[in-house]
Amino acid sequence: MYQIAIMGFGTIGSGVYDIVAANADILKQKSGQEIGIRRILDLREFPGHPAEQLLTHSFEDILNDPEISLVVETMGGVEPAFTFEKQLLLAGRHVVTSNKELVEKKGAELFEAARAGGAHFYYEASVGGGIPIIRNLSDCIVADRIDEISGILNGTTNYILTQMTSGGVSYEEALVSALALGYAEKDPTADVEGLDAGRKIAILASMVLGEAVHLEDVTTEGITGLTSTDFSYARELNMSIKLVADARFEDGGVRAIVAPAMVPVSNALYEVSDVLNAVTVHGDMVDTLMFYGRGAGSHATASAVLADVVCAARGVSPACHGGWSGVHARILDPLEAVHANFIRVSGSIDGVYELIRIFGGGSPVSAKKKEEFGFVTPVMSEAEFREKTAQLDGFIKRIRVK
Amino acid sequence: MYQIAIMGFGTIGSGVYDIVAANADILKQKSGQEIGIRRILDLREFPGHPAEQLLTHSFEDILNDPEISLVVETMGGVEPAFTFEKQLLLAGRHVVTSNKELVEKKGAELFEAARAGGAHFYYEASVGGGIPIIRNLSDCIVADRIDEISGILNGTTNYILTQMTSGGVSYEEALVSALALGYAEKDPTADVEGLDAGRKIAILASMVLGEAVHLEDVTTEGITGLTSTDFSYARELNMSIKLVADARFEDGGVRAIVAPAMVPVSNALYEVSDVLNAVTVHGDMVDTLMFYGRGAGSHATASAVLADVVCAARGVSPACHGGWSGVHARILDPLEAVHANFIRVSGSIDGVYELIRIFGGGSPVSAKKKEEFGFVTPVMSEAEFREKTAQLDGFIKRIRVK
Repeated sequence: MYQIAIMGFGTIGSGVYDIVAANADILKQKSGQEIGIRRILDLREFPGHPAEQLLTHSFEDILNDPEISLVVETMGGVEPAFTFEKQLLLAGRHVVTSNKELVEKKGAELFEAARAGGAHFYYEASVGGGIPIIRNLSDCIVADRIDEISGILNGTTNYILTQMTSGGVSYEEALVSALALGYAEKDPTADVEGLDAGRKIAILASMVLGEAVHLEDVTTEGITGLTSTDFSYARELNMSIKLVADARFEDGGVRAIVAPAMVPVSNALYEVSDVLNAVTVHGDMVDTLMFYGRGAGSHATASAVLADVVCAARGVSPACHGGWSGVHARILDPLEAVHANFIRVSGSIDGVYELIRIFGGGSPVSAKKKEEFGFVTPVMSEAEFREKTAQLDGFIKRIRVK
Repeated sequence: MYQIAIMGFGTIGSGVYDIVAANADILKQKSGQEIGIRRILDLREFPGHPAEQLLTHSFEDILNDPEISLVVETMGGVEPAFTFEKQLLLAGRHVVTSNKELVEKKGAELFEAARAGGAHFYYEASVGGGIPIIRNLSDCIVADRIDEISGILNGTTNYILTQMTSGGVSYEEALVSALALGYAEKDPTADVEGLDAGRKIAILASMVLGEAVHLEDVTTEGITGLTSTDFSYARELNMSIKLVADARFEDGGVRAIVAPAMVPVSNALYEVSDVLNAVTVHGDMVDTLMFYGRGAGSHATASAVLADVVCAARGVSPACHGGWSGVHARILDPLEAVHANFIRVSGSIDGVYELIRIFGGGSPVSAKKKEEFGFVTPVMSEAEFREKTAQLDGFIKRIRVK
């Protein structure tokens, strides 16, 4: 019997409990031993719940129980999760987490604690929910020079953008619907401002480089400023507007961004809708791989947590999961990012000739309103784009083109 | 230095050589040691090739070299690959293969030889080319009851079908173009009759059940009978015609089929075009995951071979790669498969009322020719479909609806 504890009995933690109950036979077959839940840490009470007798309010009950081999942390937030996990790892207990904020901020310290304690630290569920992107990056794509990781890494915003695309609703209306369905949190800031996706792309970038990339290193732009007019232009362009997280690797460094992007129909991310997530990885040998599935949700994310538990129970060391060092990775200048841009400009479409002159090319997008028009710039650096935009009269906004 | 040998210096074998040369630093970082190629077995000569001095025509040069820890087999075909691999495994050498025919036919015997010899047998590149579907099934999707695996597993036929869809060309013209581009072999039978995809779905089904599923257990229908008229109807239905490999798991058994299918736009396989492959896996907890990428090609497939090499060099045992036993899996009756069907019927569209009566429902698809019309049946068992079709006058053909 492989005994585990769960810290945090919320959406994901209770999903772990459900799967261990429902699929005990499969877990046993894959692990070579039975998985048992010995303790659940939560501040709340769950009267009448079948797991009630496993509940404790005291972390020491887990730390001091020698029968517990592995602890699943699904509490979220940096503290007390960090303090708990560090103590567990130093005491030689394996830790599995779904906590992206913790992995992004404190990953290197936790890998170090794991080494010091002779334990393993696993974090599959911290990025992409049920999509096994961590294990694919660490174990499967190992012969390639990875030059880009790109994806839709936040289900809440993808749901909102899908509603705005197909339902023709405003951002505010779509957010209300996301809240009603439980897809958005009461304070949706981390999702809609791109911070959640920013943490996830920082984790993936850290894995590729073996050095720490943090949220602060990622350029983040949220979706709150998008309007139905933007989506009209997108339809005109046969593109969809997605919140795209992107990391480009060059010269041993990374340039990472989360921002709304116009995604052409030819791009695999174009069709990813609702709360689904997708990650593409481009390597010099394997070309583009895409991984697609549920980026959130109780059972999908818990399934990823249990993949880590099975791995630990089998005694498989997460070799490349060794993770990254505390050295801060080389962060490339965001002004050197190169892409085309969709822009909206006020005034008559006759102004397009002036735009073509300024940008040295580009093409108009027919106006949805009399008082403005759209324009797609040639591919250029961000620095050049800003310099040219400064010369523009009537610049309203831009959306990068993926 | 981790010394390997390559048997078969064709498309994939030479790709392995290329990657070891080009990405030595990455392989070393991921494996913890340098990967060296010590011997290459091929019957041909490669005068002037940088690998020339590694070449041997004698298998004994590999078997008897104690420096070689692992052998990559990229020869294809059952013999002599099987005899060579069995000897190597029994002698304690790890084996990595891309040979789907061998894995499908002799997998269980090779797993057994590996156990007997204390070696590991890896086969990531045997299914899906560069897509890491084997490792995802064995290591990542381990907490789920898998009820369906479905995919486009053959690049040659997907290229031909894409040409027939978008280029409006005939099957024969598309095949000529596939041959010219090197996507089809001179004898394209294994690809176009669905045998290649059948072997691959048999391997994936064997992994899920832990018991052997062979090509003979898979219902296979090829693409040679498809015509431009079928594609006209597909456009009318807003569907694409794909060669879909599908395995459904029920009651500890499997029902597997490779056949042309009408794929609705809502299905993730709809958009998979050209030589790309995609595999979807449905589990009871994680829902649907999709893996997408290059299903063939020298470097993409060699990248998957090297994922296995790195795994072995790290000393990671392919635990669930333990594979499957020689016990023949329970094969479910193909007549109990349940799906809708697109059919073509000769005669005037007035005949549709008679069809609706016979099938107890269904809907017409507007005629592309005066002398026939299309019809989509309700969802029904294959047995029921055959029984009802026997009552039909003017039945021309059917294509299953995915």
